[in-house]
Amino acid sequence: MHSFKFNDQGLLPVIIQDSENGEVLMLAYMDKIAIERTLSEKKSVFYSRSRNKYWVKGESSGHVQAVLLALTDCDSDTILIKVTQKGGACHLGYRSCFVHELDSKGDISRVTQEKFFDPDTVYKK
Amino acid sequence: MHSFKFNDQGLLPVIIQDSENGEVLMLAYMDKIAIERTLSEKKSVFYSRSRNKYWVKGESSGHVQAVLLALTDCDSDTILIKVTQKGGACHLGYRSCFVHELDSKGDISRVTQEKFFDPDTVYKK
Repeated sequence: MHSFKFNDQGLLPVIIQDSENGEVLMLAYMDKIAIERTLSEKKSVFYSRSRNKYWVKGESSGHVQAVLLALTDCDSDTILIKVTQKGGACHLGYRSCFVHELDSKGDISRVTQEKFFDPDTVYKK
Repeated sequence: MHSFKFNDQGLLPVIIQDSENGEVLMLAYMDKIAIERTLSEKKSVFYSRSRNKYWVKGESSGHVQAVLLALTDCDSDTILIKVTQKGGACHLGYRSCFVHELDSKGDISRVTQEKFFDPDTVYKK
């Protein structure tokens, strides 16, 4: 495996992008094992900093991310993955997690998307 | 300002995306002051973890990023900024920093872009 530059916790940020329309869907973290699993199993596996465990995106919602292309940057401290996103990426029900628009003072001014699915239904399955 | 969730160093990752074609150009870090400056001055200002100082993207290369839209995610721990990128984002001369494709074992298999500018010329100015 390439010598990635992990942070002090052994993690690096991973940007997930919709391969079809280029929408940035989410950012989460991977350690070495999560990178290995994601690239070999071809679906996103992250490391949760709050829960201290691996999680397969979509394991409870069914909203898996099929990995099409993975790239690292010039500093090898970030990964960009282009995926086919089933359902929506955001646990609040949006297609993307990035829907909270900031104004010039850094306050949230509006939500840019309609909800794509009902999280109460999807996460109660 | 919105209550962002900064990491232990008071920083959060910021994804920079080309507003025209959706290409993810780079990821860098901002603290509260860098966010304030970026959103009010309408050009990307980052905080360098290695140099412990603020840097205006393009200050030496001229490759500034004009901020068009800023969004935060559901956890308020990441920001996505859509920009008009002058020149290229990568200090190696590529349009995007994410040009190093990873194979299924996590090794770099190829470079996905041609260089967009000559870094030796641009950074010697």
